Amino acid sequence: MSYERANIQRMQGYTAGEQPRGRDVIKLNTNENPYPATEAVARALADIRVEQLRRYPPPLANEFRAEAAALHGVGEEQIIAVNGGDELLRLAVTTFVGPGEPLGVAEPSYSLYPVLADINDSPVIRVPLDDAWQLPDDFAARMNSAGVRLCFVVNPHAPSGTLLPVSQLDGLAQSLDGVLLIDEAYVDFVDPAHEYDAVALTKRFDNVLILRTLSKGYSLAGLRFAYGIGSPALLEPMLYKTRDSYNTDFIAQKLATAALQDHAEAARGWTAVRQERARLARELVSLGFACEPSQSNFLLVQPPVSLPARELYERLRSLGILVRHFDQDRLRDRLRITIGTAEENAQLLERIREQL
Amino acid sequence: MSYERANIQRMQGYTAGEQPRGRDVIKLNTNENPYPATEAVARALADIRVEQLRRYPPPLANEFRAEAAALHGVGEEQIIAVNGGDELLRLAVTTFVGPGEPLGVAEPSYSLYPVLADINDSPVIRVPLDDAWQLPDDFAARMNSAGVRLCFVVNPHAPSGTLLPVSQLDGLAQSLDGVLLIDEAYVDFVDPAHEYDAVALTKRFDNVLILRTLSKGYSLAGLRFAYGIGSPALLEPMLYKTRDSYNTDFIAQKLATAALQDHAEAARGWTAVRQERARLARELVSLGFACEPSQSNFLLVQPPVSLPARELYERLRSLGILVRHFDQDRLRDRLRITIGTAEENAQLLERIREQL
Repeated sequence: MSYERANIQRMQGYTAGEQPRGRDVIKLNTNENPYPATEAVARALADIRVEQLRRYPPPLANEFRAEAAALHGVGEEQIIAVNGGDELLRLAVTTFVGPGEPLGVAEPSYSLYPVLADINDSPVIRVPLDDAWQLPDDFAARMNSAGVRLCFVVNPHAPSGTLLPVSQLDGLAQSLDGVLLIDEAYVDFVDPAHEYDAVALTKRFDNVLILRTLSKGYSLAGLRFAYGIGSPALLEPMLYKTRDSYNTDFIAQKLATAALQDHAEAARGWTAVRQERARLARELVSLGFACEPSQSNFLLVQPPVSLPARELYERLRSLGILVRHFDQDRLRDRLRITIGTAEENAQLLERIREQL
Repeated sequence: MSYERANIQRMQGYTAGEQPRGRDVIKLNTNENPYPATEAVARALADIRVEQLRRYPPPLANEFRAEAAALHGVGEEQIIAVNGGDELLRLAVTTFVGPGEPLGVAEPSYSLYPVLADINDSPVIRVPLDDAWQLPDDFAARMNSAGVRLCFVVNPHAPSGTLLPVSQLDGLAQSLDGVLLIDEAYVDFVDPAHEYDAVALTKRFDNVLILRTLSKGYSLAGLRFAYGIGSPALLEPMLYKTRDSYNTDFIAQKLATAALQDHAEAARGWTAVRQERARLARELVSLGFACEPSQSNFLLVQPPVSLPARELYERLRSLGILVRHFDQDRLRDRLRITIGTAEENAQLLERIREQL
């Protein structure tokens, strides 16, 4: 007999991008940072002694919270530290969405959101983005009329890379009856000229939860560390009730704190990614690709008709270059390509040229 | 307005034992190992480079799973790696217990269990242990008649330290309609003369889930790493559906693998803890304390009538020695004391003598 709940038995799990080990591949499929973490993080790692692991870690990661609070100009009680962004997404569902209550997403977006809904036995209200990957004007109204308790908006958007302005998020926060979770996994790669900063919304609205991660901008995907920014009232149940008591470990807390302290150095890498992003987009367009205007560390591109996306994906794969193909509406004819190092991008372009 | 679910709003969070920082205290309150992790773990830590953290970690921690499978003589598909034992407890609730369905515990036991039930809006069926901290004969029958989907049994028991034999767990697994989670957080401290090993149950029963942690036996509480052992069918939904996709980080996987490889060395520490446990128990009994027969790395003791438990707790605290007092039935007149180093235990005894 099976012991799992009926809704768990019915559902499909999340499918992560391929993670090849020990092979010499150019890996442009899971949006990792092409540059390693900074020297300051390396020094923090070298300073760890196993003796320090004997005791339980600080349960709330308060040293990290103080650092993040200072960086964003908010109070420490506005920060929650988590074991990777996925944990905050899950905690938000557990805390704000009753079993069976609906959860809202813009379509397409991060494929984990519907999986979290399935685990909670919650229906997913999917509102399609318009042709420019923007939210339709009636987005909040549709969420409210469906009784949505929690709405996931990823900004910059994945997988298109497009950016919503803060003014639009402001309007959303004001209009939504439920919680607005702004998943800013890729925010570090936004051009500073946009002056994008949604953190002020967490001071004005009790229903805004911002997710930041060290996986991408700080090159620490392997460490599992992210954090949420929200009003103290919104974070309180996650901090003191629904979170696993010691959700982040001692080493991760130390390295994450060092990474934020050294954010100016990490930002040099973000600048380099932006430059490569612009160059790669230009080159691909010159080869006949359509390319969305990305503020992220990836490009969503549409190959010329002569070279179907799935086929190009397969050919690149056989040549040792991994990119991402999603077999779903609006994405089937496209590829999502992570920005690599200059050399990786050059090799990608060379291989693509050979296919044309 | 509040956005949290009504059951979350009503509930109380888990209260962890005090974790003082930067003070010179003798810390015998949260059952940490008195000795640091072994040299092999220190070497594994020294080998980590921040470059290795740039990419996502192996999602299932397969290298660790292979090591744990070999140690226990089971297949790799019988192992799930988790971010501390708390994660497996939570995953079991999420996976096997529908919202509102009951969950069973022996009373008293680990105070986190009812908190996990509250998060799931599940009633807790509490069956009191008998005077010798043993499960009553009708334990399974009472769980079944209440419709319990998941039953937590901690063995060796916390906070008494007493051990149930495998034969009794075997009977339980056979009788229970739901899943039996055997929380073996303290199993490494069981005297080998008991020949206790419950792992074989996972091959015979589809409803047995064993929790092992590296927090205590392997001195890695700060690392957050534990694992579950169960039948492939039982683990499958947790491995591929309800678990956060990258729940354990790269460093923790490497250190945990090294720790298990070096388990013979860690076992020297377990022997030392057992010797100190016997000595401390003897001394306390000679001072008029009652003391449960512990197979764990702590003792549950009842001070003589002249020295109420709460008062002794407070006095030790003011002298820089932390032990644990639980303000609940059957525990109010007792203290739980973690086995420290020989020197820490000697100091504890000296301070206690001064109070008598």
